[in-house]
Amino acid sequence: MATHPDPARRSFVIEEAVEILQRTPAALDALLRGLPPAWTAATEGEATWSPFDVVGHLIHGERTDWLARTRMILERGESGEFDKFDRFAQFRDSAGRSLDNLLDEFAELRAANLRDLAALRLTGADLDRRGRHPALGSVTLRQLLATWVAHDLDHLMQISRVMARRYSDEVGPWKAYLRIISGTAG
Amino acid sequence: MATHPDPARRSFVIEEAVEILQRTPAALDALLRGLPPAWTAATEGEATWSPFDVVGHLIHGERTDWLARTRMILERGESGEFDKFDRFAQFRDSAGRSLDNLLDEFAELRAANLRDLAALRLTGADLDRRGRHPALGSVTLRQLLATWVAHDLDHLMQISRVMARRYSDEVGPWKAYLRIISGTAG
Repeated sequence: MATHPDPARRSFVIEEAVEILQRTPAALDALLRGLPPAWTAATEGEATWSPFDVVGHLIHGERTDWLARTRMILERGESGEFDKFDRFAQFRDSAGRSLDNLLDEFAELRAANLRDLAALRLTGADLDRRGRHPALGSVTLRQLLATWVAHDLDHLMQISRVMARRYSDEVGPWKAYLRIISGTAG
Repeated sequence: MATHPDPARRSFVIEEAVEILQRTPAALDALLRGLPPAWTAATEGEATWSPFDVVGHLIHGERTDWLARTRMILERGESGEFDKFDRFAQFRDSAGRSLDNLLDEFAELRAANLRDLAALRLTGADLDRRGRHPALGSVTLRQLLATWVAHDLDHLMQISRVMARRYSDEVGPWKAYLRIISGTAG
């Protein structure tokens, strides 16, 4: 710890990861439930995702990715290989459904997965265990769980950006000040 | 409308803007309330803002910017000039306060401002009225209100990014897939 005096920079702590994971469904619910389709169906252009698409993608992750891979690492280590994640599953699975219905499902699946995660009572040694990703190769359980958190935040960022860009022209000269629209890094 | 067949691309509609503005406090509350300081005090390095700083900045906007400028446009048009916005007010005003307390204040101020906005019963002609920004020059009320929305979303994106980047190293090889961490545009 002496080399990391900034508490925000210390390494992965599973309890902190769970603090984010358990809040994401409610944050998305507060932001999106009841919004008109002008917002929830907005995209950044062809082959980009709307907020509706993103929620479906998060559901697919709860169903097939995070806990399934956690279990595979614990049970099989690097002798198995994770199933590939289908980044387009939501275009099939969300068809004809309402966003409110998707938000409900995401919240239920996430809560169940966090209950299952807690029941595993992972130790530091468990977090060091490794599995095999079909493209990335050897990865640790710690990296998988940190990615679960960052992936949530990545898609919350995406939803914010997609919606803000509806007003790219409407903000007029303020565009120069809005990094979300101007695309300026920072 | 014939030139804008995509409903998500149609121009500014004040009722749609309000749909976002009224949700932002609850979305931030769901994401941030009760999080440990490891998350809420995290920054992206020197002279960058933490989630705690951002909420204080949003409060300052509610107090001094959006409604004050709206009223100035309606009452004085381009004969006046907006006060400069203090981008650093939160470092003074938030000192010693808790994040939960800031979230409460933001929600109260936003609700009051939206009540005041509704009471103005703005017309399309009102939205075309102009004021004068100290740096950007002539701007319309429509642009100001669109910027209020985009500014909310910009800072929600910033909070997501700041928190995700705590795990820049922890995600290991997944860094390549996480645009929020890799910094890849898109």
